[in-house]
Amino acid sequence: MAPHTINITEKFKLFSDQWSPKVIAEMNDYQFKLAKVQGEFVWHSHDDTDETFIVIDGELTIEFRDKTIHLKKGEMVVVPKGVEHKPKAESECQIMLIEPKGVVNTGDVDNELTSENNVCI
Amino acid sequence: MAPHTINITEKFKLFSDQWSPKVIAEMNDYQFKLAKVQGEFVWHSHDDTDETFIVIDGELTIEFRDKTIHLKKGEMVVVPKGVEHKPKAESECQIMLIEPKGVVNTGDVDNELTSENNVCI
Repeated sequence: MAPHTINITEKFKLFSDQWSPKVIAEMNDYQFKLAKVQGEFVWHSHDDTDETFIVIDGELTIEFRDKTIHLKKGEMVVVPKGVEHKPKAESECQIMLIEPKGVVNTGDVDNELTSENNVCI
Repeated sequence: MAPHTINITEKFKLFSDQWSPKVIAEMNDYQFKLAKVQGEFVWHSHDDTDETFIVIDGELTIEFRDKTIHLKKGEMVVVPKGVEHKPKAESECQIMLIEPKGVVNTGDVDNELTSENNVCI
């Protein structure tokens, strides 16, 4: 695809469903996805890849089995592959996810929070 | 590395040199880098990889051979592999770069703007 300007804030206006990542860009075999999240997600891990979270607006908590980290707007974390984690947010939080194409949002778990992949906006 | 919170604004306070990307995180074989840029960079391309620019603060212009795009805070672009481009910024601009480890900032060009790789902050 020809290079073009992507406005992250404008992209967030295009959807309202939570825990349902939308692809806004691809780089090699990686995708940039946006998601609105609120409440508690499910414990899961991704056996084959690291996963990056960047908080665009709001506050995100990620629980690990041995600690909890808190992320505010402008903060990021790389969750190493194979590490169990559970994102949660008291109020709606806007996040960017960066990970390889084909990564399922719930990782090794398949439940009602599992989202369709490759939904582009 | 164990997952930890990375504050992008705080990382930008740790350096002042321009056109000299600093690694703040790694995800699989990719790196997240921060750079302060001002003035005109050099025309170059990366033959083997796409490259992502996210503007964290300020305004960035990227010239292509067939068009010019303008990016403000909160906007991003993926430059496809092999596509010649020249970033420039009138005032100092803070950007995040995402690309595979080992990518040289000046791509196929080696000049006084070529930076050392893998400088972590």
